[in-house]
Amino acid sequence: MSSYLALEKKFRRMNAIGEASGVLGWDMSTVMPSGGAEARMEQLAALSGVQHEILTSDEMQELFGKALDKKGELGSWQLANLREMQRIWRHATALEGDFVEAQTRAGKRCEMIWREARPNNDFASILPALKEVLNLTRQEAAIKSELFGCDTYDALLDHFEPGGKSVRIDAIFDDLANFLPDFTQAVIEKQASEPEAVMPDGPFSISDQERLGREMIKAVGFDFHHGRLDVSLHPFCGGVPDDVRITTRYDETDFMTSLMGVLHETGHAMYERNLPKDWRLQPVGSARGMTMHESQSLIIEMQASRSEEFISFIAGKAKAAFNAQGTTWSPDNMQRIYNKVKPDFIRVDADEVTYPAHVILRYRLEKELIKGSMELDDLPQAWGDGLEKLLGIRPPNDTLGCLQDIHWYDGAWGYFPTYTLGAMSAAQLFSAAKKAAPEIPEALGRGDFSPLMGWLNENVHAWGSFLSTDELLTRVTGHPLDPQVFKAHLKARYLDS
Amino acid sequence: MSSYLALEKKFRRMNAIGEASGVLGWDMSTVMPSGGAEARMEQLAALSGVQHEILTSDEMQELFGKALDKKGELGSWQLANLREMQRIWRHATALEGDFVEAQTRAGKRCEMIWREARPNNDFASILPALKEVLNLTRQEAAIKSELFGCDTYDALLDHFEPGGKSVRIDAIFDDLANFLPDFTQAVIEKQASEPEAVMPDGPFSISDQERLGREMIKAVGFDFHHGRLDVSLHPFCGGVPDDVRITTRYDETDFMTSLMGVLHETGHAMYERNLPKDWRLQPVGSARGMTMHESQSLIIEMQASRSEEFISFIAGKAKAAFNAQGTTWSPDNMQRIYNKVKPDFIRVDADEVTYPAHVILRYRLEKELIKGSMELDDLPQAWGDGLEKLLGIRPPNDTLGCLQDIHWYDGAWGYFPTYTLGAMSAAQLFSAAKKAAPEIPEALGRGDFSPLMGWLNENVHAWGSFLSTDELLTRVTGHPLDPQVFKAHLKARYLDS
Repeated sequence: MSSYLALEKKFRRMNAIGEASGVLGWDMSTVMPSGGAEARMEQLAALSGVQHEILTSDEMQELFGKALDKKGELGSWQLANLREMQRIWRHATALEGDFVEAQTRAGKRCEMIWREARPNNDFASILPALKEVLNLTRQEAAIKSELFGCDTYDALLDHFEPGGKSVRIDAIFDDLANFLPDFTQAVIEKQASEPEAVMPDGPFSISDQERLGREMIKAVGFDFHHGRLDVSLHPFCGGVPDDVRITTRYDETDFMTSLMGVLHETGHAMYERNLPKDWRLQPVGSARGMTMHESQSLIIEMQASRSEEFISFIAGKAKAAFNAQGTTWSPDNMQRIYNKVKPDFIRVDADEVTYPAHVILRYRLEKELIKGSMELDDLPQAWGDGLEKLLGIRPPNDTLGCLQDIHWYDGAWGYFPTYTLGAMSAAQLFSAAKKAAPEIPEALGRGDFSPLMGWLNENVHAWGSFLSTDELLTRVTGHPLDPQVFKAHLKARYLDS
Repeated sequence: MSSYLALEKKFRRMNAIGEASGVLGWDMSTVMPSGGAEARMEQLAALSGVQHEILTSDEMQELFGKALDKKGELGSWQLANLREMQRIWRHATALEGDFVEAQTRAGKRCEMIWREARPNNDFASILPALKEVLNLTRQEAAIKSELFGCDTYDALLDHFEPGGKSVRIDAIFDDLANFLPDFTQAVIEKQASEPEAVMPDGPFSISDQERLGREMIKAVGFDFHHGRLDVSLHPFCGGVPDDVRITTRYDETDFMTSLMGVLHETGHAMYERNLPKDWRLQPVGSARGMTMHESQSLIIEMQASRSEEFISFIAGKAKAAFNAQGTTWSPDNMQRIYNKVKPDFIRVDADEVTYPAHVILRYRLEKELIKGSMELDDLPQAWGDGLEKLLGIRPPNDTLGCLQDIHWYDGAWGYFPTYTLGAMSAAQLFSAAKKAAPEIPEALGRGDFSPLMGWLNENVHAWGSFLSTDELLTRVTGHPLDPQVFKAHLKARYLDS
């Protein structure tokens, strides 16, 4: 028992240091002056260096050995905590310190070049740096796959989605990829036969937008004594569970993007806030993984906030907030704006129906690149072919194609599928939530998230990392992730069928 | 050489962790929601725990041994760096980890009670907790005085003012204490014979005040690419040398306090900004100590910004900034407001002439308390007697007396004298600066700080901790700290003599 408790103490310190990095990361993206960047990098490097040393010390290895010998003395949450500790430890000890440093350097270097290459549509300029990044990623995948006894892609995926398996993702994504092209076409035809969505006329002052955003954040159930709303170039949810930092950006000609963005980040925030308090700073008390995290942002943004009931509510609310008039503010028109489907080149601007195509494309490409069955020189061509097959459009250049996302260039591989796995999990959870609490849709029509949040707190948030993603889904919805539920949701929302 | 370089590497990491704490401290005082406090304490404790472990490791001791053996191989800055490393190490290794934890706990507990006891004028309620704090402080002083071979008070002072000696402070403060009562009386009489200072009528909008404050911060030479101005309850200068965080607070009925406060903090900020860049994150590259730091804020606030020349400039500037009219905005009236002398009970509100009396009082009391020649039960009485002797006034209660400052209650002992030593050093440096660059006063009359800042950068900031405070003063002004210069400054400003 004492070895297990010693491990808890070490992870507690390590995670407190990780929380410090989380606050510094928020600062960097919101308020830090540009001249502070170099010093900040040094601070963050020192903190992650200390974390790595704690994890990879000989003492840690000994403690794990002893704690595993006395597993029988542990309760179920302690056992789950020990399992999660081991997972983190396995990832940390798999790679030599020098190798990790080389990866960090290569990723930073490539990211710097990407910042120029993207606007200049210059894939050739970044190719050498990206090859170095991929080369190191392949090495990492090879090392970890041997150690963990799993597929190379899965060895990387495990870092973002513990226990995730590409065999299952293949099946799920193939199913979706078969379904989406015809479905998308049908939705586009249906929407073409309906009145056109008309954007309300601005300008919408930032202060009015912020006031409305704050009101909606509170409506979801977020407590501003435990967090903030600020502005950043790329919206995110950061900070720490007891001090969650939500960010957004404002456009005076369009309040609708920021409003949904804020609701999305609030979904992430509520998950962090409601993680099991007794297990703060312990691995089992942390969010389950990227799939479940994204499911929590998308259940708020896509499932709840784009429901007919909530859009009716928010149409009136927004009209009053901006002191506006006219038919563009009707629930029907708002519905049409928020649920408009249009294939486009850029993933982050995509709607709910076309978004999975972008993710499936990247997933398939990164799997081939990691396995070595494809080389980076062929990426632009493969990207165009893939998008054309999935969405029927082909990017006219790499700026709108394979240069658009920072992922890959910054060294993050094996992370993309969690976006769509999250969207599908959100649909499955929302469906189960409505069965358990049938008052949810009507409450959303009054801007009241409490029945939904109460269910999510109890059935998702409070479980931390006690269960795997599929175990949690099975426990709560009766079955593991199932693409049929997501497809049914899309059909109901976009084809009324 | 390799041992010395290994020490540099360790201190670099340790100081980067210290910088992380600095940013977290800023966050806590400016933007952190109240519900984040507990998690923040845990983060800060983890960071200082790591720093302490690095410092007190066996490896560190070995490295010092080897580096000292090969001192001959080091350059002068490296030698000075090694000396400063040792000083920090001596303080850290003097006390057991459990002892430091007990101190932290006692200080936090006492501070919590103080927050209630001050407004309630209830010294009795805090006495047991304060006795515990003082008891631990006395133990620390005894341990360190034996190890360092110095006086008990000096063992504590050394932490804030390296190499400071109470024998010298006694002589300097006795000299001032003899001078001040009659001098203060003479100034009060002189000011009574002159037109009364009339405060300009507000309100002064916060946005106008902030704009003026920012303009003045830039005038001093501060670059907002390397820092920020924000609001906090207690103004301070925090952050890190390449990302300095200045704070202030605004009162819509009085712009003058915030304006001078901002100039004060900018003095601190410029010192941090201009510390030697080649020695970032090394002890020798850090500020010399509290005396020199305070001298840099006071040379901007008290010496430069309250000079006749600058007040004439700022009178016109402020009048325009607030779009104001009337004779209250005349340089003469502004002069009278900013240089008004009036004995009062509260240190932080005191003017330049009566401030030293508050500091001398606390210095004398804390020395006796640390030595054990006085007990805390007698503090309220001794406080009243002391203030009456120095300033001719006696606080009607402890809220306005010994409960007013957080120092002592929070565990900080041996720090008070640096306020007045800083004020005196500022006078001495300003006098030398004007001799070296006679254009300084005229430039200040145009709101131009560059001749003064150029001199300070070269003669003070760039030296970091290479020299001791007195060595630096001697090098730059021709002699160590000398109360005559400060007295001459006061006579010239307040009695035109």
